[in-house]
Amino acid sequence: MSYTNTNDIPSYITIAEYIFHRLKQLKIETIFGLPGEFNMPLIDKLYKIPQLRWAGDANELNAAYAADGYSRLKGLGVLVTTFGVGELSAINGVAGSFAEHVGLLHIVGMPPTSAQTKQLLLHHTLGNGDYNVFWRIASEVACHTVIINDTDLCFMEVDKCIEIAWKRQKPVYIGIPVNQVDIPVRSLHLNVPLTLSPDMNLNDIGNDVVQLLLQKIYKSTHPVIIVDGCIIRHGCIDEMEEFIQRTKFPVFVTPMGKGAIDENNPNFKGVFTGSISSPSVREVVDFADFLMVMGCMLAAFNTSTFHFGYKSKNRALLYSDSIKFNNATYPDVYLKPLLQSLLQNLDESQINYVPKETPKMIIPKRELPDDELLRQEWVWNEISHWFQEGDIIITETGTSAFGINQTRFPNEAQGISQALWGSVGYSLGACLGSLFAVQEFQRDHNHDFHHHTQKSEKHRVILFVGDGAFQLTMQELSTIVRWKLTPYIFILNNHGYSVDRILHHRSDASYYDIQQWDYLNLMNTFNATDADTRKIITVGDMKDMLRDPEFAVDNRIRMIEVMLPSMDVPKALVDTWKKEKEKYKRALESPYSDYVTETPNSDGSLRNKRPRIGETPESDF
Amino acid sequence: MSYTNTNDIPSYITIAEYIFHRLKQLKIETIFGLPGEFNMPLIDKLYKIPQLRWAGDANELNAAYAADGYSRLKGLGVLVTTFGVGELSAINGVAGSFAEHVGLLHIVGMPPTSAQTKQLLLHHTLGNGDYNVFWRIASEVACHTVIINDTDLCFMEVDKCIEIAWKRQKPVYIGIPVNQVDIPVRSLHLNVPLTLSPDMNLNDIGNDVVQLLLQKIYKSTHPVIIVDGCIIRHGCIDEMEEFIQRTKFPVFVTPMGKGAIDENNPNFKGVFTGSISSPSVREVVDFADFLMVMGCMLAAFNTSTFHFGYKSKNRALLYSDSIKFNNATYPDVYLKPLLQSLLQNLDESQINYVPKETPKMIIPKRELPDDELLRQEWVWNEISHWFQEGDIIITETGTSAFGINQTRFPNEAQGISQALWGSVGYSLGACLGSLFAVQEFQRDHNHDFHHHTQKSEKHRVILFVGDGAFQLTMQELSTIVRWKLTPYIFILNNHGYSVDRILHHRSDASYYDIQQWDYLNLMNTFNATDADTRKIITVGDMKDMLRDPEFAVDNRIRMIEVMLPSMDVPKALVDTWKKEKEKYKRALESPYSDYVTETPNSDGSLRNKRPRIGETPESDF
Repeated sequence: MSYTNTNDIPSYITIAEYIFHRLKQLKIETIFGLPGEFNMPLIDKLYKIPQLRWAGDANELNAAYAADGYSRLKGLGVLVTTFGVGELSAINGVAGSFAEHVGLLHIVGMPPTSAQTKQLLLHHTLGNGDYNVFWRIASEVACHTVIINDTDLCFMEVDKCIEIAWKRQKPVYIGIPVNQVDIPVRSLHLNVPLTLSPDMNLNDIGNDVVQLLLQKIYKSTHPVIIVDGCIIRHGCIDEMEEFIQRTKFPVFVTPMGKGAIDENNPNFKGVFTGSISSPSVREVVDFADFLMVMGCMLAAFNTSTFHFGYKSKNRALLYSDSIKFNNATYPDVYLKPLLQSLLQNLDESQINYVPKETPKMIIPKRELPDDELLRQEWVWNEISHWFQEGDIIITETGTSAFGINQTRFPNEAQGISQALWGSVGYSLGACLGSLFAVQEFQRDHNHDFHHHTQKSEKHRVILFVGDGAFQLTMQELSTIVRWKLTPYIFILNNHGYSVDRILHHRSDASYYDIQQWDYLNLMNTFNATDADTRKIITVGDMKDMLRDPEFAVDNRIRMIEVMLPSMDVPKALVDTWKKEKEKYKRALESPYSDYVTETPNSDGSLRNKRPRIGETPESDF
Repeated sequence: MSYTNTNDIPSYITIAEYIFHRLKQLKIETIFGLPGEFNMPLIDKLYKIPQLRWAGDANELNAAYAADGYSRLKGLGVLVTTFGVGELSAINGVAGSFAEHVGLLHIVGMPPTSAQTKQLLLHHTLGNGDYNVFWRIASEVACHTVIINDTDLCFMEVDKCIEIAWKRQKPVYIGIPVNQVDIPVRSLHLNVPLTLSPDMNLNDIGNDVVQLLLQKIYKSTHPVIIVDGCIIRHGCIDEMEEFIQRTKFPVFVTPMGKGAIDENNPNFKGVFTGSISSPSVREVVDFADFLMVMGCMLAAFNTSTFHFGYKSKNRALLYSDSIKFNNATYPDVYLKPLLQSLLQNLDESQINYVPKETPKMIIPKRELPDDELLRQEWVWNEISHWFQEGDIIITETGTSAFGINQTRFPNEAQGISQALWGSVGYSLGACLGSLFAVQEFQRDHNHDFHHHTQKSEKHRVILFVGDGAFQLTMQELSTIVRWKLTPYIFILNNHGYSVDRILHHRSDASYYDIQQWDYLNLMNTFNATDADTRKIITVGDMKDMLRDPEFAVDNRIRMIEVMLPSMDVPKALVDTWKKEKEKYKRALESPYSDYVTETPNSDGSLRNKRPRIGETPESDF
């Protein structure tokens, strides 16, 4: 039975319905966004497709974050906004999806075609008759854009947009003028499947790369694999797991790759956070004679926060669409066919590496008196033991993104954080998106997490967010309440922007302080009908909570305010980070004093120490 | 005494301090924004300038709205964000300032110059080594942009940025790489005053326009003046008032111009809302033999929401920087010098117009039983009598932007709304900005509202916002609480997006519904120490409140939830609007069926009525 027959679809449908049917075919069942002047006829059409639902977010930026979080579990997120005001409000979220390789379809309701042609001045324009400005802006953070105008080809354009967003895992922008929503399309086109996989045939370059990699794999006696985010995003977890199982190579994950591998796997050695990794991790990575970064997300070696200065010889960086080996780049080699070809050609008997028994990553369980106040170090270790198989663990840019790296994920736990783009406030929106995705998995008894079938049927959604970050997007909690979704929301209350306090070395600056809220009272304000709220101050409070079997069940929304000192952040990490930052800052300091002919006053208004003329700042880049 | 002597400023200061001193000279004393990775050293400098303060907003979009609201009263708003995530989050607010002619300085803390040159991959980049993408995006909604790099000229660049933002009343973008914050600048430059007025000499074109306008002014027997937003924005209220007083011409205001003229002035005839004005207003405007739109904000005649189809003969549109007379455009003629020249050359004795005594705009005071439920029509009339001289009255895009047009403003009341750009959620941010501005006026005993000295010393800040719109930006209420500011916040609770319900003719669509909150409980959640909260359900509740003399004093934050039926909106306006929209929609409907060769199914999935091939849709554009 064809899709149109099974679903009893008339011969002609509108282009808007066509889009939504295509999404339904992909099991993309929740659409995020807000109604607005030019997108309401479009949203109306969504209600005609059984099984699709309109999330109804509280603002557009939150909606973009939610679509991003949803996409990380299901492979594609869809965001609907209105022309100008709506799409611009969302753009920071879309840029995040672009930076972090997240498949997103951004559909924007636009003014009618003829209004645009005649340059009539409409609401939500800049008042200068320029209707293309928002499209130009969108093009900067999308890998493909289209405005639906062509009545004959529009269905093909829609197919192409969805395919690109899915395959490239980047945002795609579709503008639909409000008068084009009803363009009739033959529904039979829905019976032609979309092309969602990359071409699985490797080109000649790809075949060369396979041979090159196999050589290195066989020869290496100290290999290291680092699993990065694109392994998850481009659906290559199964291939990666098989490769590790067959080679027995030791494996680390980056913060973006955390969750890709079962952390109880004997090959798993920990989290590699570049220059701020623990010395033992750095040693293994730096002295590898062959380093393979699988699903590499970074376009360059060095980053500020995670300074990946790979010192090892023979570095192979496997990006989603190209390979870099030492200094050579091999373009147009795609991750999935490359890995499959590697596996087909791999002959384990030629491997020289002898697996070493290394001690398992142990999460210390420290006993502290019940009345002691909480510290992040202890909290993260403690919570690590509470995680369960299948948990979706979401962390915010800030202390929690660091804390989480010292926890061990159980099997099939999935981490979500915006480690690269780092937009503060992202996590609450992503939490909403994940909750919808999990609800759909459980409803459909289909736990196909973006091409990686999970065995666990339970997926608790657990959010860790600082008080400062929470304030930026907090109204999205109301959407969670409205849909009666049941996450764990841990508000780590350390009285403001603590990571910044540390980073910027000015703990006293008043701009890190924020208004103290009665966070738990939000459950009343938002009219939650069945909420569990807890304020956790002491070690005893925390232990009691985590021991409580009822608490372990995600049958109601649970909001937990964890009181932490304002200058307390995960210590090991930040000590090193501080040091690195300082070095980095000095290295990058521009010797602008070259141009100053007079000596600056010594009144303290200028920095005391600046490079002298001709002095080259030290640098390790 | 020079500025540097008076303020005891050392000979060299950093460029960051230079910027903030320049702002202080203009009495721009509150800076809006959020701290972030690359702007903290910049914000540190702000704390060195006595009298400046850091607002500390809850998110960047709200901060942009707040800076916009502040600017509407003080002539310039300043927004500080961080590279990428911060600036993109704010961009919809900046675009609003661009569309509505609001002077804004957007200062963005950027990564260090050398990191950019070397294309090191940093946090908050798109991961593709492109450091210019955010600057390109910003350029689309700024009238001038600069990146601070030149150590010799940077102070001149800063001066130019401030002058342009002030004179053109548009956003200007300054990027400061974090390592350039400390560029030393001779402080003596601060003693050279900025050029903040346009060149007051008219060019030849300007002189011709003055003669042309005078001819029309003298000859007209049915003149009409319409005062639009740029009169306020470009500081021309005094000139406009003198012109009206001397000519005695009848005056209307647009929604954007409301508050520019004392509505008790006998020449004041009401609010002109284009095609949805009352028939009596339309008649006067349409049959004018000379129409002068002073401070015109629109680049074209027609808009969707306010369809300004001026039918009158002899239309002179006075823009901020050009004049349009009927079909001719006169470029580079600036509003203020033009008006001053008009006044210098105006000879009242040659005017033919004889002022007619027309009945004053009467706000009906209707007596209803105390137990009756509220309706918008009655609420707006009632509140109109409660307004006081000097009130700042802020309305949201939605029902309140319509309701407010049926109120009469007392003398020196100032209206703030985003009538053109129409970004939902704007008003709460703008309320915060206005509160800071008012606090500064009162502290300095200087009521110089953007070149228009006010006599009233009291300025209550009164916000009307629908429940739907409030949810988008609600965390900014916490900033208001934090600073112990004392606005009136009227939440018009009509259970969702009511204007949209009406506009889109689908009152049943569930996407207009929102989660119902206990709005007044937010005062507890945000830890307000001295709040007055009231829930107003009946006519009696409302009357009691407005009669209460204690309520009239703005000595504490007052939050009033006004319960309204969900389908009740200001009636007269929406009836007409609905009609207009329907006509407009029909007119603009693209006859795409021209391209369809087969007849669409009649299964109801397509619109029943579509233009036949070759049929021209009716249009009055």
